Amino acid sequence: MEPWKTLNRRSVLDAGRFLTVEMHAVQLPDGQVIDDWPWVITPDYVNVVAVTEAGEFLVFRQTKYAVDGLTLAPVGGYLEPGEPPLLAARRELLEETGYEASDWTTLGEYVVDGNRGAGTAHLFLARNARRVAERDADDLEEQELLLLSRAEVEQALCDGEFKVLGWASAVALALLRLDE
Amino acid sequence: MEPWKTLNRRSVLDAGRFLTVEMHAVQLPDGQVIDDWPWVITPDYVNVVAVTEAGEFLVFRQTKYAVDGLTLAPVGGYLEPGEPPLLAARRELLEETGYEASDWTTLGEYVVDGNRGAGTAHLFLARNARRVAERDADDLEEQELLLLSRAEVEQALCDGEFKVLGWASAVALALLRLDE
Repeated sequence: MEPWKTLNRRSVLDAGRFLTVEMHAVQLPDGQVIDDWPWVITPDYVNVVAVTEAGEFLVFRQTKYAVDGLTLAPVGGYLEPGEPPLLAARRELLEETGYEASDWTTLGEYVVDGNRGAGTAHLFLARNARRVAERDADDLEEQELLLLSRAEVEQALCDGEFKVLGWASAVALALLRLDE
Repeated sequence: MEPWKTLNRRSVLDAGRFLTVEMHAVQLPDGQVIDDWPWVITPDYVNVVAVTEAGEFLVFRQTKYAVDGLTLAPVGGYLEPGEPPLLAARRELLEETGYEASDWTTLGEYVVDGNRGAGTAHLFLARNARRVAERDADDLEEQELLLLSRAEVEQALCDGEFKVLGWASAVALALLRLDE
């Protein structure tokens, strides 16, 4: 199986740091050319499922623009330009919760849209988290920090209360990893 | 906690069926207005983790434009306009694999980008799948259909071989559900 080739790319929308759109001409292995393949560029991000030394999960209850009603959410945020994912994960955990964690496990990196890109999600499990500072979040949404048991997190995940794909993915992967 | 309000929306890019971009003016609960909030419209999609009567997982090995190298993938595809998600899931399973399943469980619906929309992923677990027809896939990528054991799927997920966020999410949620 051969990859598709990018023959050329041109910018069709520059909406600032958070969204650029390109149009790619791509060639398939059979020679077919598609000359209007949209490609979405958004910043890479991290999500962190953080578990305290006592085994409680750090989870937010909050709003989110693309979500109806309230949602649960793990720690997360965009990478700063050039920032390594693990550093971003540690930074976001500290900023959003005031916690640091001594035990970090990667849960993988995943392209958000297999066809159009849309950035990469870097997912982490952070264990042995403990509070070291006050919260200093710069997010635009109001967030309520909860400490949930594993059973509560499992039930919430099953009930669809983590309403954003990357968040549900991080939580599901973390629960599987904790079972190993 | 109050949701953000959409004050107005204007189209800034129409790249066809697979991508439209709007610019929204949004008002935060504290009254702050952001007048250039990008909003991405892409089709909703399904992913289906299908398990045969013998307990084998139907998984593809394939390329994907946004992925480096080969990736594993569950069944999946875009909803047709107006198509209910479960019907799309059954259709994609039959088209891509030639299998039907008698036991369907929803694994939830998730907005792909909590800030910018980018469609909704509808995830399913299909059990008791059995072959009823030849494959009739219309996908652009060449796909090799594999029958993997649960242990092989778990290992592949842990190793990051499902390289697209929605695919890893569907597989992780399915494994958790199968444990209940």
